[in-house]
Amino acid sequence: MHAAFFSRTGDPSVIQWGELPDPAPGPGQVRVRTLAVAVDAVDALVRSGRWSTPLTFPVAVGRDLVGVVDAIGPGVTGLREGDRVWTSSAGYAGRPGATAELVAVERDRVYAVPDAADPVAFVASLHPATTAVAALHLRAHLQPGETLVVVGANGAVGAALVQEGVASGADVIAVVRDARCVATLEEWGAEVVVAEAGSAADAIADRRPGGIHVFIDTTGRADTASAVRRLAPRGRAIVLAGRTSAELDLWTLQVRELRVEGFILSALDASELREVADQVNARWAEGRPLTAHVGQVRGFADAAEAHRRMEAGDLPRTAGRFVGRLVLVPDAPSLDAPRTTW
Amino acid sequence: MHAAFFSRTGDPSVIQWGELPDPAPGPGQVRVRTLAVAVDAVDALVRSGRWSTPLTFPVAVGRDLVGVVDAIGPGVTGLREGDRVWTSSAGYAGRPGATAELVAVERDRVYAVPDAADPVAFVASLHPATTAVAALHLRAHLQPGETLVVVGANGAVGAALVQEGVASGADVIAVVRDARCVATLEEWGAEVVVAEAGSAADAIADRRPGGIHVFIDTTGRADTASAVRRLAPRGRAIVLAGRTSAELDLWTLQVRELRVEGFILSALDASELREVADQVNARWAEGRPLTAHVGQVRGFADAAEAHRRMEAGDLPRTAGRFVGRLVLVPDAPSLDAPRTTW
Repeated sequence: MHAAFFSRTGDPSVIQWGELPDPAPGPGQVRVRTLAVAVDAVDALVRSGRWSTPLTFPVAVGRDLVGVVDAIGPGVTGLREGDRVWTSSAGYAGRPGATAELVAVERDRVYAVPDAADPVAFVASLHPATTAVAALHLRAHLQPGETLVVVGANGAVGAALVQEGVASGADVIAVVRDARCVATLEEWGAEVVVAEAGSAADAIADRRPGGIHVFIDTTGRADTASAVRRLAPRGRAIVLAGRTSAELDLWTLQVRELRVEGFILSALDASELREVADQVNARWAEGRPLTAHVGQVRGFADAAEAHRRMEAGDLPRTAGRFVGRLVLVPDAPSLDAPRTTW
Repeated sequence: MHAAFFSRTGDPSVIQWGELPDPAPGPGQVRVRTLAVAVDAVDALVRSGRWSTPLTFPVAVGRDLVGVVDAIGPGVTGLREGDRVWTSSAGYAGRPGATAELVAVERDRVYAVPDAADPVAFVASLHPATTAVAALHLRAHLQPGETLVVVGANGAVGAALVQEGVASGADVIAVVRDARCVATLEEWGAEVVVAEAGSAADAIADRRPGGIHVFIDTTGRADTASAVRRLAPRGRAIVLAGRTSAELDLWTLQVRELRVEGFILSALDASELREVADQVNARWAEGRPLTAHVGQVRGFADAAEAHRRMEAGDLPRTAGRFVGRLVLVPDAPSLDAPRTTW
């Protein structure tokens, strides 16, 4: 089989396109014939070694895939060859990566692909959708009627947070710095504030005098200390981006019972990931899927170039200035996915 | 009836000892004949107005009481006259206070007193016990086998945290600055570190290279930022004391999924308080009650003096340097509680 893989960590040039032996599904695994994989920022963190995780070399790059079950390993129940499945946890913690024609995946890490979902659009949505669902429900425990503030709502994760927040019955304030995003976000049901991330907390203060219940900055540039001061009693600030620090007033934290909580998708175990996957799929069943903008679709052979562009911040944008995601598909003649060029 | 009450907020001299009309139990209330009340630091915050809460003047001082049901209001089930009961939420949020011979209490805020409990010792234990149970279970979600660090384990709340932590199957490290506390804390099952609160986080670092799961500083003087750096993945720092600030590194918070969470007992609602009360009573049923040291027992008429001494930090200490609590009892000839003098 063909794969985009690496045998040591390093810059994007460590990614090779070539042949690897076909994997056999081990006990408790299924083998998936890949239809599409997403290129996530965290894939570059794994490839570069900046995020430390056990890797079994050679390992294909990539975490999220959509495919078709191709072979069933011993002891696996509830799946048949030909079933469309997805996973969002390939390629780290010693598991095989996604950008390969065939991938062995543990049974408890694959989920059914909704019937209505197109593989390319669906795989693009997985990282933002799973991040949003986990952050809002497993971490923030967002309740209907609560006010959710999302800073950086034009990013893929930000957009998914807005969509999932609205679908959960929250009062969502989306902060973006480019006014061209406003119409789409309003259409999704958010109130939009145009402001720089750094002044987002101040910009929204007058909008909800009673305070904010959940604050999430996807840019890493918001002033978290200021946001925490704007939280309502029992409010939560979920930290999922950024390398800054925040000087927190502990008396305010105590008397308002506030919570500042870190979140990283990679830390979820298989049972938490399944809970998240069930919710992602449930939104499809309800007819309100969490969507992401597909920026470009290329072949697996372009994986190294995709990593280069992503790390350079050279991501395609929609006309509305939403970040477009990169998707890779195998060079399989049976797949008739839309293709764009760089 | 006699009561120690105040008609405006202010210093301890606003507390009067005198007569008030006997309360009648309203719908959903019981009337309790008080056996003993505790003097809590938060009582002084309410009396002084430093902690803002609705008050219906004149209001008796005090929050925690143990007594006997004396009359049953309309619609109350499951209680009979003569039942021994306790509450820990009198005297704030518009409710009548505890330091009165008769107190009307909402049915859903009274709980049965364990048969084996002495009213004076039990009332002294209530604030520390309920604080410890709520902080460890409702907030920190402490799990068996996790490492819990308690700074200020010689205080009433600190001692209760150590006892409840050990009873919950945690690996408890108790930090105290006075070596005379060590024997008792070790007897309770804790590992003891003698250190100043300000350097507690550094002092325990070598003890658990894998990190701390739950960190609670009861002194308000610990270095919370340093403690957060010592937390294990998914570790929690519960903030329930102090007026300092802490500069938190958000990257560490994110990648280790740490949580910094404020807690204040006064924010719990009746259903949360009942969950906590059930756990406090369950420890008695198991034969391992959460205990507090009783420092002195005086009459209700001494309430103003008790507040003065508490605010001056002039609290009795046991020989082992644990803080002793102040308990007030009505001047009822039927009560034969032990008395000490100032």
